[in-house]
Amino acid sequence: MIVIGIDPGLARVGYGVIAVRNRTPEPVCYGCIESGKDQPAATRLLHIYSELTAIIAKYPPAHIAVEKLFFSKNITSAMGVSEARGVILLLAEQQKIPVTEYTPNQVKQAITGSGRADKRQMQEMIKRLLRLEEIPKPDDAADALSIALCHIHILR
Amino acid sequence: MIVIGIDPGLARVGYGVIAVRNRTPEPVCYGCIESGKDQPAATRLLHIYSELTAIIAKYPPAHIAVEKLFFSKNITSAMGVSEARGVILLLAEQQKIPVTEYTPNQVKQAITGSGRADKRQMQEMIKRLLRLEEIPKPDDAADALSIALCHIHILR
Repeated sequence: MIVIGIDPGLARVGYGVIAVRNRTPEPVCYGCIESGKDQPAATRLLHIYSELTAIIAKYPPAHIAVEKLFFSKNITSAMGVSEARGVILLLAEQQKIPVTEYTPNQVKQAITGSGRADKRQMQEMIKRLLRLEEIPKPDDAADALSIALCHIHILR
Repeated sequence: MIVIGIDPGLARVGYGVIAVRNRTPEPVCYGCIESGKDQPAATRLLHIYSELTAIIAKYPPAHIAVEKLFFSKNITSAMGVSEARGVILLLAEQQKIPVTEYTPNQVKQAITGSGRADKRQMQEMIKRLLRLEEIPKPDDAADALSIALCHIHILR
């Protein structure tokens, strides 16, 4: 069973593909979809949609997990993130893939047992849970892997 | 030339289709796409995407104009509106239709000459500019018509 975690954003979308074999999560691939600041929002959103479509075709997931914010200090940034999230939710629904949203606190709680874990602690746990040699980079990809791991944890 | 104005939202998307003939704007149709509160966001976004796809197929527009907020008192509501806007911008880009975003103040300025016009004044102007017998209902449809009229005004 494959689960794809997604950390949405207009400038960068982190993704993490995890396979569960014999109840053990194994990293398949992870990375970041970048889109240029000088491009209109519509162009960036289509780029995100096209890249994610390709990833889903290559690694057909049983589930998609997406980060959801409930508040933000920066409304402009929150609106850009939400535009990207809208496109991601649409794509999942079009492909009939069940999609679940988790807040950052839910993800931290599932991975470390505490909703207050800091970034460093989260990254150490992701490295350990996926038996990686290094902390996955960039941060957006690590966040996406943690969202996928959170969903796998909740599924159990 | 056809221009479609769109007032985005997760619960209600207003749309207004205006044809420009001999430099005169003529209303073609307007209305509101509703989606149930009890449905998941992904389902609502696909419903919005499908309905707008049908409207664009029926009245192929030269331009699409979409309302853009720059601030909001209610972050949860702003995030829902932005998710819908992301889907609308994606659809326009997929169909290669130029899309322009306008703030409410820009729309008010274009229609009434003042960025501070109230709802009643806006609706009276829309009725007059489109030579309608009644103020268009619901409000979301009237807003969408005003966004299309704003774009037609800017194009001149």
